[in-house]
Amino acid sequence: MQRYFIDEALEVDQHFSITSDDAHHMKNVMRFRPEDTFHAVDQKQCTYLCEIAEVSHDIDCRVISAVDESPELPVKVTLYCPLLKGEKFDWMIQKATELGAHEFLIYEADRSIVRLDDKKRKKRLERFGKIVKEASEQSRRQVIPNIDFVPAVDRLDFEEYDRLLFAFEGNALNPATNIQSAISDIAHGSRIAFIFGPEGGFSEAETKQLSKHHSIRLGPRILRAETAPLYALSAISNSFETPASN
Amino acid sequence: MQRYFIDEALEVDQHFSITSDDAHHMKNVMRFRPEDTFHAVDQKQCTYLCEIAEVSHDIDCRVISAVDESPELPVKVTLYCPLLKGEKFDWMIQKATELGAHEFLIYEADRSIVRLDDKKRKKRLERFGKIVKEASEQSRRQVIPNIDFVPAVDRLDFEEYDRLLFAFEGNALNPATNIQSAISDIAHGSRIAFIFGPEGGFSEAETKQLSKHHSIRLGPRILRAETAPLYALSAISNSFETPASN
Repeated sequence: MQRYFIDEALEVDQHFSITSDDAHHMKNVMRFRPEDTFHAVDQKQCTYLCEIAEVSHDIDCRVISAVDESPELPVKVTLYCPLLKGEKFDWMIQKATELGAHEFLIYEADRSIVRLDDKKRKKRLERFGKIVKEASEQSRRQVIPNIDFVPAVDRLDFEEYDRLLFAFEGNALNPATNIQSAISDIAHGSRIAFIFGPEGGFSEAETKQLSKHHSIRLGPRILRAETAPLYALSAISNSFETPASN
Repeated sequence: MQRYFIDEALEVDQHFSITSDDAHHMKNVMRFRPEDTFHAVDQKQCTYLCEIAEVSHDIDCRVISAVDESPELPVKVTLYCPLLKGEKFDWMIQKATELGAHEFLIYEADRSIVRLDDKKRKKRLERFGKIVKEASEQSRRQVIPNIDFVPAVDRLDFEEYDRLLFAFEGNALNPATNIQSAISDIAHGSRIAFIFGPEGGFSEAETKQLSKHHSIRLGPRILRAETAPLYALSAISNSFETPASN
């Protein structure tokens, strides 16, 4: 079932209009006609089955019924990641959105290869926004992850998180640091942050700075910068979205 | 530490030569000189610290000592996957290699979009072989995953596996099917196979055929064809490579 995010609160039987990009997609890609149905996720992060009432310049729609689903991770996961070369960051945020990421915060690491000025950052955020929106629709989520730039790690305040996990390559040979040991006692509803390094890894200063937090490994193999967040989210899902483990 | 796979059995103090592509890489990319060190993984899947003795047309090397490491998953995971459009299959096998896949077997699904004749398959296997070799070196593995083409699922015999897991999109809303429930009782050393569908999902015939095996979900979100294997491997690693869970 096709899914769209709607920027208002919906109720059953309500009529609403879809405009701009989504209307274009409904008309020209999906070729929707009156009585065709789709899922709309509203501002309250609730999902509704809706039908097309009329297709003109905009799309007039009607809410049929609420949909009972829980596609969001039971913990809110923020990923702190530096930009990566080429298309790697694009596809990491696409995949991490499918896997349930709540937020991406982009920091400039000491060894970051990709560095952007403010103008380029703004343009890049527009592209990233489109990628995570489409990935949220495709993976049937109720939340579009937030994505933004933040300062370097030595200027960050992590107080809002219930747990901060530092994905450090140097732990690869230490099984006791495997992520599961650091997340098994976390309560549903908690906020977790992960810090991942750039292609060349963390600098000594960053490692020292971050070592005071939970330092973890993601298995014994060395993962590329764009792969590590996907392991972390999959492990979180496997741990928190399996009934027996709750 | 740079890593190379060596096609012979090594012993401490032994001298051996590295030729062709790896020799080129050592000379022209790493710019190795005598006394520089690297890791060599031999035919027995053991890792050795080695040093360069002499750089000429080939590279003359000496084994210094054995390296104690266990980068391989405690279970052997075979992934049955159809080819995917564009570069998606390339990067899936790269990431899945980092995450510990033992073998990739490519089948033609009823809804496969990419279909190749024998000549193209051969060329493609050469490229895939390079991708998984490089990913094995980079992620510091001791095994280069095998990769090959196999027949369609209705002609496959899965008897060699201790467990066969069918990653079925239709399970997304059923938490009881989460992968952890289907792997928690598997012994170390077992062989596990996963079957993943193409971009458009499994056909009705395939679903009927495969439903007799363990039908699982990978969290409640709908993952793209190239993302699902990465979740599966991460969950396996998190489950089997965390000491407390053994």
